[in-house]
Amino acid sequence: MFGREVYFKCENFQKVGAFKARGALNALLNLPSSSGDVVTHSSGNHGAALAWAARKLGKTAYVICPTNASRFKRDAVERYGGILVDCGPAISQRETALQSFQHERDATFVPPYDSADIVAGQGTATLELLEDVPQATEVWVPIGGGGLASGAVVASNGHCDVVGCEPELARDAHDSLAEGRRLPALPPTSIADGLLSSLGQLNFEILHRARVPIRLVSEDEIRAATILIWQTLKIVIEPSSAVPVAAALKEDRSTKGAIAIILSGGNIQPNLS
Amino acid sequence: MFGREVYFKCENFQKVGAFKARGALNALLNLPSSSGDVVTHSSGNHGAALAWAARKLGKTAYVICPTNASRFKRDAVERYGGILVDCGPAISQRETALQSFQHERDATFVPPYDSADIVAGQGTATLELLEDVPQATEVWVPIGGGGLASGAVVASNGHCDVVGCEPELARDAHDSLAEGRRLPALPPTSIADGLLSSLGQLNFEILHRARVPIRLVSEDEIRAATILIWQTLKIVIEPSSAVPVAAALKEDRSTKGAIAIILSGGNIQPNLS
Repeated sequence: MFGREVYFKCENFQKVGAFKARGALNALLNLPSSSGDVVTHSSGNHGAALAWAARKLGKTAYVICPTNASRFKRDAVERYGGILVDCGPAISQRETALQSFQHERDATFVPPYDSADIVAGQGTATLELLEDVPQATEVWVPIGGGGLASGAVVASNGHCDVVGCEPELARDAHDSLAEGRRLPALPPTSIADGLLSSLGQLNFEILHRARVPIRLVSEDEIRAATILIWQTLKIVIEPSSAVPVAAALKEDRSTKGAIAIILSGGNIQPNLS
Repeated sequence: MFGREVYFKCENFQKVGAFKARGALNALLNLPSSSGDVVTHSSGNHGAALAWAARKLGKTAYVICPTNASRFKRDAVERYGGILVDCGPAISQRETALQSFQHERDATFVPPYDSADIVAGQGTATLELLEDVPQATEVWVPIGGGGLASGAVVASNGHCDVVGCEPELARDAHDSLAEGRRLPALPPTSIADGLLSSLGQLNFEILHRARVPIRLVSEDEIRAATILIWQTLKIVIEPSSAVPVAAALKEDRSTKGAIAIILSGGNIQPNLS
């Protein structure tokens, strides 16, 4: 199907069902020992990851989460012991809600992606991948805030190329890297609900310096690739994970060498008709 | 959730997405070398398995398949190079169609479950399972025609117990073993579309002699267990596979010891809403 050898790093099988567990745990392990509870904003996987990591370390995580976020992802935050704080759907509304929350409570903010500790944690996915598949010439990753992609750049350390993949409807990373300056997120309309954030500043710098190319895919391509993975690999991935799959499927077939795709998460509830 | 240690044998990851590949290949390998094309009747997974095994051995497989069988399973037969022959939905209609077909063409019938070669092939799932999980005290399997369960009895050879699981709506194995005689299949109404066959004669004898207990589950329990596995294991299973999961979930919690559940297949197309 791909015209090349393809390996998958199945972060849908990771704790909390997404690579976000890596960065959240690393960030908490790097907080001063005196620090108490933590707070973040997230439409889902980072929120659940922070709740999971916080509980492991005896802390409470508050998760500012849009009320229209996936029910599945909101439930996961609570299942791991996190406390949901509602906010509106726009990224700006999350940030306002965070500021209000921090005025009222003493909790350390753990950003979802724009932080060296988060990037380093997410990079362990690529470290493990390249241990298992040293012959990979490219690592393909979805880009939302850019933590996974930046971690891939740091972890691969020039030994292979990183290819970022984004929905057309959330192409701020593509356009930011093309223009050489960070652009705001587009309205949150893509089915790939993990990729709606704007690129973090640190992540922008890492990706820009490494000249990471960004491939764009349509909503139809994302849906088709999601279902293709369900059908052929018999594993559950969420649409965000299917973005690099969709992109690799339409890549020039003359390119050679094994590639690795990071399937970023599996937090979706498919329907049984 | 189960109150016990539970291991899963993931036959959804098997070739053709179901344990049926095992029996079909074993049956074909045991045919006389002079034999030509093959024919079977199947609502799906055995048909695809026979098509796959036949192609590996340079033969053609004809698959008599109800027109109302899952589109997913009918497509799979053709994807593996098999030729579909339409029939009506009742088991009796499959058998009539098979007889007409064999009047017209020279093809060896490979039964879906009622055959020593098929049972021996399906038994390799349990052989592998007990190599990996020797501490399992029970192997839980779904029962349709009884090939997988009979194979489990033969392969476990008394080293652990076999527990069969059936939908309430397709409880012919339960009732047959209780009455000590084979009863016909019930009307095909369960969502567990791989478990609608009546018990094979050989399989009835094996299960009866081994006093295999049969647990029954409702359609709601099957649906809930299917979705539970999708959500928690992040793997795609079909409802037939969820039948032993549903049964084990409501088992008496005072029972101890690790159990193993064979997830029989993953051939379903979940919907992306």
